[in-house]
Amino acid sequence: MQKRENRTFKVRVYYEDVDLGGIVYHSKYLNFCERARSEIFFSQQKSPVADEYHFVVKHIDANFLASGKFEDLLEVHTEMVQKKRASLTLHQSVYDTSDQEKLFEMSLQLVCMRVDRIAPIPAGMLDVFA
Amino acid sequence: MQKRENRTFKVRVYYEDVDLGGIVYHSKYLNFCERARSEIFFSQQKSPVADEYHFVVKHIDANFLASGKFEDLLEVHTEMVQKKRASLTLHQSVYDTSDQEKLFEMSLQLVCMRVDRIAPIPAGMLDVFA
Amino acid sequence: MQKRENRTFKVRVYYEDVDLGGIVYHSKYLNFCERARSEIFFSQQKSPVADEYHFVVKHIDANFLASGKFEDLLEVHTEMVQKKRASLTLHQSVYDTSDQEKLFEMSLQLVCMRVDRIAPIPAGMLDVFA
Amino acid sequence: MQKRENRTFKVRVYYEDVDLGGIVYHSKYLNFCERARSEIFFSQQKSPVADEYHFVVKHIDANFLASGKFEDLLEVHTEMVQKKRASLTLHQSVYDTSDQEKLFEMSLQLVCMRVDRIAPIPAGMLDVFA
Repeated sequence: MQKRENRTFKVRVYYEDVDLGGIVYHSKYLNFCERARSEIFFSQQKSPVADEYHFVVKHIDANFLASGKFEDLLEVHTEMVQKKRASLTLHQSVYDTSDQEKLFEMSLQLVCMRVDRIAPIPAGMLDVFA
Repeated sequence: MQKRENRTFKVRVYYEDVDLGGIVYHSKYLNFCERARSEIFFSQQKSPVADEYHFVVKHIDANFLASGKFEDLLEVHTEMVQKKRASLTLHQSVYDTSDQEKLFEMSLQLVCMRVDRIAPIPAGMLDVFA
Repeated sequence: MQKRENRTFKVRVYYEDVDLGGIVYHSKYLNFCERARSEIFFSQQKSPVADEYHFVVKHIDANFLASGKFEDLLEVHTEMVQKKRASLTLHQSVYDTSDQEKLFEMSLQLVCMRVDRIAPIPAGMLDVFA
Repeated sequence: MQKRENRTFKVRVYYEDVDLGGIVYHSKYLNFCERARSEIFFSQQKSPVADEYHFVVKHIDANFLASGKFEDLLEVHTEMVQKKRASLTLHQSVYDTSDQEKLFEMSLQLVCMRVDRIAPIPAGMLDVFA
């Protein structure tokens, strides 16, 4: 298991993200992490959807450790922990920037698709997370 | 202005739909109304996306009259108020089924697109709301 | 590990649920499962938020097996696989009703909270899934 | 009708924001505008929910002029066009930053609530948009 780069992305918690308890609706952490992955592509002038290739989520193992709240400024950390021919495993964590408390963490397996079939990750897309 | 048919569709308010005040997040009423429009197609074994044709929202005039709450069972009413060659105007209202209070109403103009261009509404799609 | 009841809940895939590939955005399966859990409460004239008690998601282990698409009618199956004093483990699966293909499955641990603290599950809430 | 300040806020279009046509789902423009309003509060070290006061959306008149797409970086402009004792009218527009094309514009009436009742806007909240 190789540890690659660590990257960060900030996310504000808005009205649309919280439920009646004033805390972030659980599935929104997955959205926040997906935004962070997309921004890693954008920051390299690349796209997560290119030449008929894209990634799909295959497996998630997630721990909900504490609750983000309305107005919080969160930070998503992304690192690649494994790469295979047609899949990647990333570790993503979400922190509250006010006190660096970890709110959420997940291990995420992405599979590379070309149109509708599993395909080897093209070099240009693999480099993105490395 | 011709009044056409009136149709109803039920929507439950879940955790994901409410904000920290426990009331429906304002833009969700637009989603509820879009679901109702889609179901009008489905109920006639049709699709809102067919043969390169689809509708896009062009204009909305909406009044937020009262607040839906978590657990409420709402009902969306849809009627066509005007049809033109390439556009339709619908009136949609959302009621709380527990007391028939009207929570939301909007006038909505939809424009027919074929791929990326405005196009005359095909007969099969026009009939759907009529 | 005791297997308890199996319950089903239908969910339609609307425009708001799919991404540019026309397939269900991955985190939406978590929303669909949460709606199914809420409806289990509602079907028993109970609420998932009662007397200061509610559940929070603690852990999710999820497999994304195939892709739901716009217009699909899905079905969520929910069964309780373990109960402890202050937590429950459920297994939830999402099927495409057109061919009974399994699209998604997850193991989900819910922890009971009273206001902001972990608390023993009140009898009335435990019975809901049993 | 008094024109007050003009403020800008950037929003990226992610997977979760687009539909199967690859364009921004219509109600998301309302979310983008709400985020912009919240950030106007945050930028002044204030909260949109304070001392039992908050705003609710009362009326929206919106034009959908062109389509934002996945990866686009948008910009929301907000200006106050009218203030009354218990309500505000804002004008908000969304532009594509790549070419400054206007995609969306709306007139939005917000009503001030104290807990569940309409109330005069407290001075500290009125200043926020002025």
